[in-house]
Amino acid sequence: MPCNNKSFTNKYINNIIMDKAQIIEVIQKKKSFLCVGLDTDLKKIPEHLLSSEDPIFEFNKAIIDATLPYTLAYKPNLAFYETQGWKGLLSLEKTVAYIRSKHENAFLIADAKRGDIGNTSTQYAISFFGQKNENHNFDAVTVAPYMGEDSVKPFLEFENKWVILLALTSNKGASDFQLLKYNNKYLFETVLETSKQWGDSSKMMYVVGATQAEMLTDIRKIVPDNFLLIPGVGAQGGKLEDVVKYGMNNDCGLIVNASRSIIYASQGEYFAHKAGEEAYNMQQEMKKYL
Amino acid sequence: MPCNNKSFTNKYINNIIMDKAQIIEVIQKKKSFLCVGLDTDLKKIPEHLLSSEDPIFEFNKAIIDATLPYTLAYKPNLAFYETQGWKGLLSLEKTVAYIRSKHENAFLIADAKRGDIGNTSTQYAISFFGQKNENHNFDAVTVAPYMGEDSVKPFLEFENKWVILLALTSNKGASDFQLLKYNNKYLFETVLETSKQWGDSSKMMYVVGATQAEMLTDIRKIVPDNFLLIPGVGAQGGKLEDVVKYGMNNDCGLIVNASRSIIYASQGEYFAHKAGEEAYNMQQEMKKYL
Repeated sequence: MPCNNKSFTNKYINNIIMDKAQIIEVIQKKKSFLCVGLDTDLKKIPEHLLSSEDPIFEFNKAIIDATLPYTLAYKPNLAFYETQGWKGLLSLEKTVAYIRSKHENAFLIADAKRGDIGNTSTQYAISFFGQKNENHNFDAVTVAPYMGEDSVKPFLEFENKWVILLALTSNKGASDFQLLKYNNKYLFETVLETSKQWGDSSKMMYVVGATQAEMLTDIRKIVPDNFLLIPGVGAQGGKLEDVVKYGMNNDCGLIVNASRSIIYASQGEYFAHKAGEEAYNMQQEMKKYL
Repeated sequence: MPCNNKSFTNKYINNIIMDKAQIIEVIQKKKSFLCVGLDTDLKKIPEHLLSSEDPIFEFNKAIIDATLPYTLAYKPNLAFYETQGWKGLLSLEKTVAYIRSKHENAFLIADAKRGDIGNTSTQYAISFFGQKNENHNFDAVTVAPYMGEDSVKPFLEFENKWVILLALTSNKGASDFQLLKYNNKYLFETVLETSKQWGDSSKMMYVVGATQAEMLTDIRKIVPDNFLLIPGVGAQGGKLEDVVKYGMNNDCGLIVNASRSIIYASQGEYFAHKAGEEAYNMQQEMKKYL
């Protein structure tokens, strides 16, 4: 496939490596730390796509084309693909391959919230990072911390790949366990403190919901250098301004996700154009903060 | 396909419903509470299968045929299928369909350890329980508790389906967070106490590792009536005798999983026969306790 962006080095063209330096470079280049959540739902995409052979892939392709100039990262949530069975996984593989074919350094996050005993987590790590499935060549995977160190470590063994560990999520249920407080410390704070010993800020990011923006000040005391993946801006009610105010560090240190507010901005014929506009609007706001 | 077991009622032949009464009936009928973990790994299955069109499915089929008379439940771990990409998911779908085609009341557990914000967990629930994917028609799915109530509830909304929530797992990392103890209460005990309000013992089971058998006495004080899924017997070192001693209740209340010790009992031509023998040996021990 043709290379459209000759300014990128070979290292990144044929074998994209999204290490920390490269993520920061893309943020500076695009003036954006936006992540577009590809939570593609057949019930919500424009009707006229449903007659195509692979509506999910067609939708994603259009959204990617429209949003890529303004976007640092893409985050398909596995649930929306698995719900279509093996065909959904095929749509996902085609989506990953399509993004890679653009030869732009997009950061690809598998939002899978996996975690299992060691030998099983290794299988998950291979499925998201492994060479055998080129089309599953993600840069990062979200991981749930409940099962502890040996459930997370296998993901860290892959060079230039990232674990994004759930810390404080954006949903109501976050208060059930993550906000249990004993000895003046929340459970999610113990998760941060313990897990930062498993890998440093070149390997580990954390999920912190935008709906919990006021907590970011304390979180930055524990993990000052790590990138944070921030869902919950947009449909879930979190504000970009607050996230930046409390969470930004010298490297930016933020990857802010929006899913529904961008990809379902319109259900009409020009849905992709509208999604592009929404991404552009977010990028324009982000630019102010960089 | 022909029905080989006419003693089962129509209700269960064409639309298998594995409610609590039915699980107990199968345990009594087979004198077994064994779950066979279908953690099928291309690197570990007999070499002569690798030339077949779908080695994973061929392996599973042979293991199922050999173990079904002694087995209450099958538990494919999703990681081992996802690691093969969409083809792995197709192998899994064929496996589920194959078990259902036997017209026996096997309890089918998707060991997926999922959990996400509400609308996303709904997608996962559809993918494991939903009508659209008949071949993903599992009876239960393992769910991680970290994201709290609204991440678990969508799975509970499906009639006659089960959530098996992670409580105390069998791995070393269990001590990192699950065994955090404040005010004389472990985190996993809070998980049990909180989550039992989300659904009763007709909808909720819990994962408790066999390597933690001595904890079962205290766990039974919190969840006396729930079935417990017990991994960690066999390769991981847990003992069936201890699990029964501390964890059995009047309904049996136990589903004991063995994966590697059964399915990889032999890598030779007669691997399935050897797996069947291992399952039979476990069933014979279980029979003594029932």
